[in-house]
Amino acid sequence: MQQGAPHELDKSVLAVLKNPSDLIAAIAQDSTTHEVLMLAWMNQEALAQTIATGQATYWSRSRNELWIKGATSGHTQKVLAISLDCDGDALLLQVEQVGAACHTGSRNCFHNEISLAK
Amino acid sequence: MQQGAPHELDKSVLAVLKNPSDLIAAIAQDSTTHEVLMLAWMNQEALAQTIATGQATYWSRSRNELWIKGATSGHTQKVLAISLDCDGDALLLQVEQVGAACHTGSRNCFHNEISLAK
Repeated sequence: MQQGAPHELDKSVLAVLKNPSDLIAAIAQDSTTHEVLMLAWMNQEALAQTIATGQATYWSRSRNELWIKGATSGHTQKVLAISLDCDGDALLLQVEQVGAACHTGSRNCFHNEISLAK
Repeated sequence: MQQGAPHELDKSVLAVLKNPSDLIAAIAQDSTTHEVLMLAWMNQEALAQTIATGQATYWSRSRNELWIKGATSGHTQKVLAISLDCDGDALLLQVEQVGAACHTGSRNCFHNEISLAK
């Protein structure tokens, strides 16, 4: 699903990643409702493409390819802000979600509640 | 930091985990402000202990041990709800955060903003 030449991360970003060759956990949060929509993964190229295009692009671990969120479904994520965590191995994206974030059609992916002990 | 006998996951929970032997990414969200506080990791025992005690307990990848959040700092997380995502490999915790979630003293861990392309 990648289009055009591969994107590369700026050195200043690369420098703050804990393990630049590892996948980074990326949390997408609805910028308006603050709902946590999903967690996916980024490699360097996915992050660089997200930064460059403003459209959330992940690395699909099941398909082993770049995954422009919504390229097939139309359920895109416009990225308004990206923050890296204190130890450089997790990202938080503030997004405008079009339609459902989850492939099941749910607004978010976290719809399986686990009961706490009484 | 573990106390007492190890906790074990209920079979019904075990059945919905994608890869029960893998670490699971766990997002902690402030139940009141909806701020995403941090991302950490759980193994089966950490999740079972969290369910049983209602106190967020993670697996420290750097120390290779259970990590009751706030056991040292006092910055505990009371867990009000836990949800598993659609493909069974990420958790969202709704928590009451005491003090700062981040070891740097920040309220949350996502304080390194990455600039988007203009």
